[in-house]
Amino acid sequence: MKISPLAPKSFPTLPEIDGLDCYTARAQYKEWDRCDLTFIKLCEGTSVAGVLTQSKCASHEVMICRKHLLHGHARALIVNAGNSNAFTGEKGRTACQAIISRVSNHLGCAEREIYISSTGVIGVPLPIDKANQGLDKIFNEKPCSWPQTAAAICTTDTFPKGVRSSAMIAGTKVQIAAIIKGSGMIAPDMATMLGYIFTDAAIDASFLQQMLNKANDKSFSCITVDSDTSTSDTILAFATGKAGNEKLSAFDDAGADAFMAALDSVCKEMAHLVVKDGEGASKFIEINVNGAANDDSAHIIAKSIANSPLVKTAIAGEDANWGRVVMAIGKAGEPADRDLLTIAFGHHRVAQNGGAIKGFDEALVTDYLKGEKIEINVDIGLAKGISTVWTCDLTYGYIEINADYRS
Amino acid sequence: MKISPLAPKSFPTLPEIDGLDCYTARAQYKEWDRCDLTFIKLCEGTSVAGVLTQSKCASHEVMICRKHLLHGHARALIVNAGNSNAFTGEKGRTACQAIISRVSNHLGCAEREIYISSTGVIGVPLPIDKANQGLDKIFNEKPCSWPQTAAAICTTDTFPKGVRSSAMIAGTKVQIAAIIKGSGMIAPDMATMLGYIFTDAAIDASFLQQMLNKANDKSFSCITVDSDTSTSDTILAFATGKAGNEKLSAFDDAGADAFMAALDSVCKEMAHLVVKDGEGASKFIEINVNGAANDDSAHIIAKSIANSPLVKTAIAGEDANWGRVVMAIGKAGEPADRDLLTIAFGHHRVAQNGGAIKGFDEALVTDYLKGEKIEINVDIGLAKGISTVWTCDLTYGYIEINADYRS
Repeated sequence: MKISPLAPKSFPTLPEIDGLDCYTARAQYKEWDRCDLTFIKLCEGTSVAGVLTQSKCASHEVMICRKHLLHGHARALIVNAGNSNAFTGEKGRTACQAIISRVSNHLGCAEREIYISSTGVIGVPLPIDKANQGLDKIFNEKPCSWPQTAAAICTTDTFPKGVRSSAMIAGTKVQIAAIIKGSGMIAPDMATMLGYIFTDAAIDASFLQQMLNKANDKSFSCITVDSDTSTSDTILAFATGKAGNEKLSAFDDAGADAFMAALDSVCKEMAHLVVKDGEGASKFIEINVNGAANDDSAHIIAKSIANSPLVKTAIAGEDANWGRVVMAIGKAGEPADRDLLTIAFGHHRVAQNGGAIKGFDEALVTDYLKGEKIEINVDIGLAKGISTVWTCDLTYGYIEINADYRS
Repeated sequence: MKISPLAPKSFPTLPEIDGLDCYTARAQYKEWDRCDLTFIKLCEGTSVAGVLTQSKCASHEVMICRKHLLHGHARALIVNAGNSNAFTGEKGRTACQAIISRVSNHLGCAEREIYISSTGVIGVPLPIDKANQGLDKIFNEKPCSWPQTAAAICTTDTFPKGVRSSAMIAGTKVQIAAIIKGSGMIAPDMATMLGYIFTDAAIDASFLQQMLNKANDKSFSCITVDSDTSTSDTILAFATGKAGNEKLSAFDDAGADAFMAALDSVCKEMAHLVVKDGEGASKFIEINVNGAANDDSAHIIAKSIANSPLVKTAIAGEDANWGRVVMAIGKAGEPADRDLLTIAFGHHRVAQNGGAIKGFDEALVTDYLKGEKIEINVDIGLAKGISTVWTCDLTYGYIEINADYRS
């Protein structure tokens, strides 16, 4: 698999997070020579929050995480790569349950403190014998590094993805390390988005959940590769509390704003990395909509542009085809007046007042579109609603990857 | 342009419709050697009905048709191919108005009796001098044939599209001829769907509208090529009244059921022809959803499957990837229970009771998927809602056509 042209030059140096250890092993869920089972051991007192797919056909793993999140405490995270265990009925449920029992026995903790994700082919029950053999191995492994862990959760990703940040909470420095896998909010059988955020900060679970929801609204909820939502998308945030800060539990606590800002930037960067590994992506596209009736309306319009195959193929072809942007605004169904729209690629305005801008220099725009990062800026001209959404272009690569993946 | 592999073997023999004449001419809206201006002259007393794009950025032409449809009478239809005149501000509006004045003067009728459509590149005002020269020519032309007319309204279509039918209304035989252009409900700048239905039956305009709405719900509203809705989609039905039947004005009139059935079949066939010329299409896909909470819910689920790039690429790859169908059902947001779904390709059931069907013969299914017409049959297992939607697969051809169209 060729590495995405949009991949960062290298994997960043992530901070060690006090209170957790990472382990990886070969469960051989597929016929491959790589680690595909991940175990992250978390210290007592770790709080947890999560956002999960809204699919009506969610996997067992998602349903288990949703149930366990009601309690807010975590002692371990297990990730299986190579098999999503989604749509696998009673057998899949049993396999999931067996892993959870075994890990909770090993750690001597409650089952509700174990979190689990699986990613890979759909419809094949997770082989419990392979999981058991994998767990036997992993319980005897030495801790491994962040790059090794980030690689072990990948499936068809073309590069491992890590993000770091830090924040000062009332004089105490806290660290954030995060890993994510995925090539979009896409297929259940190949490109589930799984992301995990770890911090040594002490944060009350319900407040961590509030902050994660807020960060999610401006990051993971604002990306799309191909409009296909996975059955297994999962983002979990774990806070070990080892940094020694006074526990955060509300937005007006000292340092909560700093942590929120750090979490926002981590989530946004994680989300961007997924788009940059979007299947077949050759360009990273930022869509800024302002002037809409309200923020929700702006978001729907921005998503409509981001999900339009015709807009995405135009960008792939480096074609300043603003007519397709008009079409995508029109089909969104939100308040818009053809004659009030302004459309620009980067800072190059191309259309205004219901028509093309007279004598705009198409060569300049075409030149701009040759870049790797493209902004589509739209002013609806009605009110003050704004939204930003990120996506990638639609190329032959997408068809190549998806027209023959499973067989 | 290679003709779609799904094209019918030949253009059908359409009946002459008493009360109308077709004319075509070269307006040279683009640098091409073909007729691109169409004028269909309709006799006095012709009633008309229409369904138009719901885009919030609809073209001038659509807005004019919408306004004129309030009156229900038609004397002429003008179609410009090669320029959509959409998003062209005051200039485009003026060009449109000039054509309408000229045609109404020529015929000595009211402006509200003239209908107009344009299709082609967006954002370039329709050149009024070319339109005028074209009209000068066309007013002196001899009437032409249906195949010539069907070809003149095409843009990037790979074949001209015609459909015929007839019905008995209380002992009087009435004829229907219809033409349509489009490669999907797609881009404003290349593939607007324009369809026109002509009958010699006598039908009250408001009743014709009721029947057209009904037929539309089960035909044009049930197709998708790439989920991108045009700014200019237009379907118009004209009834000249020359067949001499007693005028139809309600569903319980004698023969109304026969005409409704004929109209239904004509609209469905027209819609199918558009899908069969879907950009890059190699397979015609019928998606049948039953067992949903209600019909609307079934329609949303069927559209979610039909618009999923991952389902469409799987079919292109002849891959029985039912996991992607589960994903598309899950993301639709409608009531569904993973463990109650049944999924079949044609009559080959592949998944049931929350998992793959044990030992289903994948070779048989793969063989089925090598065909040109593929059925995806889904039973949600909840209630009695049903819907059928048609689409095509997503191939390299789509990217090829769209990544460099305008420039």
